Amino acid sequence: MELNGHTFLDKVLGIVKEETDHETALIQFKHPKELEEILRENLDISKKLNDQDLEKAVRKVLQYSVKTNKPTFRNQLYGGTDPYGLAGAWIAEAFNTSQYTFEVAPVFTLIELKVLDHILKLFGISDGDGIFSPGGSISMLYALVAAASKAFPEVKRIGMGGLPEMVIVTSEDSHYSILKAAHWLGFGIENVKVIKTNDHGQMSATDLENTLQQELALGRTPLMVNATAGTTVLGAIDDLENVAAICEKYGVWMHVDACWGGSLILSKKYRSKLKGINRASSISWNPHKMMGVPLQCSVFLLREKGVLHEANSAAAQYLFQQDKFYDVSYDTGDKSIQCGRKIDAFKLWMIWKARGDIGLNHLTDHVMEIAEFCIQTVAHRSNFRLVTMHMQCPNVCFWYIPTFMNNKMENEEWWNTTHKITPKIKEQLTLRSQAMVAYSPLRERKNFFRLAFTFHPVLEKSHVLDILQAIEECGEGITLPVL
Amino acid sequence: MELNGHTFLDKVLGIVKEETDHETALIQFKHPKELEEILRENLDISKKLNDQDLEKAVRKVLQYSVKTNKPTFRNQLYGGTDPYGLAGAWIAEAFNTSQYTFEVAPVFTLIELKVLDHILKLFGISDGDGIFSPGGSISMLYALVAAASKAFPEVKRIGMGGLPEMVIVTSEDSHYSILKAAHWLGFGIENVKVIKTNDHGQMSATDLENTLQQELALGRTPLMVNATAGTTVLGAIDDLENVAAICEKYGVWMHVDACWGGSLILSKKYRSKLKGINRASSISWNPHKMMGVPLQCSVFLLREKGVLHEANSAAAQYLFQQDKFYDVSYDTGDKSIQCGRKIDAFKLWMIWKARGDIGLNHLTDHVMEIAEFCIQTVAHRSNFRLVTMHMQCPNVCFWYIPTFMNNKMENEEWWNTTHKITPKIKEQLTLRSQAMVAYSPLRERKNFFRLAFTFHPVLEKSHVLDILQAIEECGEGITLPVL
Ligand SMILES: Cc1ncc(COP(=O)(O)O)c(C=O)c1O
Ligand SMILES: Cc1ncc(COP(=O)(O)O)c(C=O)c1O
Repeated sequence: MELNGHTFLDKVLGIVKEETDHETALIQFKHPKELEEILRENLDISKKLNDQDLEKAVRKVLQYSVKTNKPTFRNQLYGGTDPYGLAGAWIAEAFNTSQYTFEVAPVFTLIELKVLDHILKLFGISDGDGIFSPGGSISMLYALVAAASKAFPEVKRIGMGGLPEMVIVTSEDSHYSILKAAHWLGFGIENVKVIKTNDHGQMSATDLENTLQQELALGRTPLMVNATAGTTVLGAIDDLENVAAICEKYGVWMHVDACWGGSLILSKKYRSKLKGINRASSISWNPHKMMGVPLQCSVFLLREKGVLHEANSAAAQYLFQQDKFYDVSYDTGDKSIQCGRKIDAFKLWMIWKARGDIGLNHLTDHVMEIAEFCIQTVAHRSNFRLVTMHMQCPNVCFWYIPTFMNNKMENEEWWNTTHKITPKIKEQLTLRSQAMVAYSPLRERKNFFRLAFTFHPVLEKSHVLDILQAIEECGEGITLPVL
Repeated sequence: MELNGHTFLDKVLGIVKEETDHETALIQFKHPKELEEILRENLDISKKLNDQDLEKAVRKVLQYSVKTNKPTFRNQLYGGTDPYGLAGAWIAEAFNTSQYTFEVAPVFTLIELKVLDHILKLFGISDGDGIFSPGGSISMLYALVAAASKAFPEVKRIGMGGLPEMVIVTSEDSHYSILKAAHWLGFGIENVKVIKTNDHGQMSATDLENTLQQELALGRTPLMVNATAGTTVLGAIDDLENVAAICEKYGVWMHVDACWGGSLILSKKYRSKLKGINRASSISWNPHKMMGVPLQCSVFLLREKGVLHEANSAAAQYLFQQDKFYDVSYDTGDKSIQCGRKIDAFKLWMIWKARGDIGLNHLTDHVMEIAEFCIQTVAHRSNFRLVTMHMQCPNVCFWYIPTFMNNKMENEEWWNTTHKITPKIKEQLTLRSQAMVAYSPLRERKNFFRLAFTFHPVLEKSHVLDILQAIEECGEGITLPVL
């Protein structure tokens, strides 16, 4: 029996280069049903293809896929892969290894440990612990499990049924993963207490303390406060010193969701925005967002050693045998909810080796400079209106108000129209393949655009101008009534 | 600002080929502290390297890494990457996309849907649902969340505190992920009821039914029965028809952990071993195990549509806007606990396109043939002793009894010595880089070897003979006392 296919690997780099080069469109948008029709044969997997036909099928798939590495892809909190990170990903995939034991992943185990050490130090934590997880949402699960396990070690054995009533506290601008986590882990989303934010998106410290007091008075245990360093939409960073002081006062686990903003730790100039993060009990940070590491690369950190293992171990005999011939304290897999676990740390190691602390410092400063340029440009352009001037992460949020909307009363109807205009502009941008940008409503604010900037192989100020220009063009093309 | 590094990608294929070629050792084992010393400079990430030095560092890392693609790597339930799967992984990484919305992953969304459709059909489920998850352990979380959500929809809102007492039922040979899941999700591991297995590792149906009756009599709700199709060590497949009948009788959610054995569905000859799996409420299957898809590739399937979305949605406004310009029912991300999610389905699509149903059928038959050959060989070789002849998945479990142990009374002391001999042989195999094989105790059985076979680019019968030969050599080299 022979398993062919090795020669196909020789073609991959060429295919990828050609399908993402300057000529290719950011997106060739087709509606779902239409796309299904176009790709009917390519989607069917029952029949075997030869390599030549497979290559054609792959190219067709890629033709209609979004080129997320183009600088005009600003639709998410990622975009623009670091080529060293991609090289790391390719090597990791080729060496196909799971991270659970030292014996199968000797070097990758050490790499994970060393990269974690370096990151812990950056975040000002000495003698902490950590693990790479499949994403920020799963890191949120880790945080809650660790907090519960620390407060009530018996939870592992007896479950949530026997524990006192608990609440989890977070801000109204925080990421939705905390709701999913509260559901999955058996807290219930009713027990997530939501704190108001100020105009810039930061959690109100007064409200936070009041809520903790109220909950305690009602006999409920506040298990965890989730502060955010870089909210998803506005990019707000909660006042971490303040939150830390409150958490310390009430003895509550402080988690910082720094999935987005955590990358600022890489910059000497900007890391002070995260002041207080070293006082957190746990931190999550996604290098797969701002830093351009290929998805997935997410770090979960804890200030206290031992909690992670204590909270997660199951001591499976077939995998974590204690009678092995080497020091089994290097088998880190039992700290994890996963069994098989990708060697995501290796991608980060590659980037760090290639760029060093100094290079990453520089890239962080650059992305903030681009965002600052964008915010200044938006502030000074007619028909653009900023949601907030107070930029904390490289997020720029604004409305585009077409000329025909000017000089009208900004009443409810006017805002409802604006609410419809934003998605209309996005539709046009997408259909014309000029840019992909995010939009969102937020609390009482009607749909607005969010441009989020990331470390990027080619992104420059000129691209920012191109995107804004395209928004303006599409905005001016809108006619009434907006349906 | 310019982000260099693209030229490094040109080197990856060459590096990978050279570092895994015929000359390279399966493993150059070093103890953790020693390896840290050897790699001291390579592990440190603070200083920036130029491309030439980076390449050296990468090669050193790979030199000491395990070559999991060699046929003598039989240490885990994976090993031997399908080259088409690897090509798919490389393309997926290069296109760096998250699976959450149709707009950023139009084709990949359709691919996930179509691949799931095809798999559901294979498993005999019409109109079901599914999702790719970061691994079998996380699929187990999905299963329990779905079961709980179906039985008690209010759990999402109110948490586990307000629900009746529940138990989860599984066999003593099942994978440890159910314990971790029971802890994480707030059931508590005390509420996992463990059913005895027979000599071949299959769950006792009588015991199962008795346990359900007992629990019901005690006023506890049996929430889920976890059957296993391919246990981790022996490769046992529970009698799924029988388990299904019992689950139907008592109205309990039946989950089948087919992470390992699910691949048998690909073979016309062997799929009858999974008879009854179509009656399961949910199934997990890891193509990243037997099938050779690069880690991670794990499927979670449900028989009932809607449950997955119902159980997991949080309806985040910034991502799953309902006022988009296309049919948002194609935004599948809110069925997931994850936010960012890798396009793991694409790797499977690549393999299926390249091999077709017919090629995968063939590969399944081949791996079973290899395992059958191994079991027959072991059965007929002196000094080898099978743990069970009853092979259900391509697992072969046996002891090697060195000659000096022959003709001795097989009392407790004798077994204790055998228990120590197995890891000793493994140590020698590893140090000599002859093979990496798993060992484990199981219930009252002392440490034995497990050879598990996977679809593999080069694995043939001759490799099986080589591995057995190496075990014999190392076994005969053992001297008393075994420490
Ligand atoms: C039977 C079984 N189920 C589930 C799993 C867990 O799968 P994963 O490693 O993808 O979490 C394993 C892992 O070996 C297994 O053997
Ligand atoms: C602030 C914040 N936290 C957490 C997450 C979740 O991260 P992931 O997508 O890796 O699950 C996101 C995703 O956008 C986020 O913006």
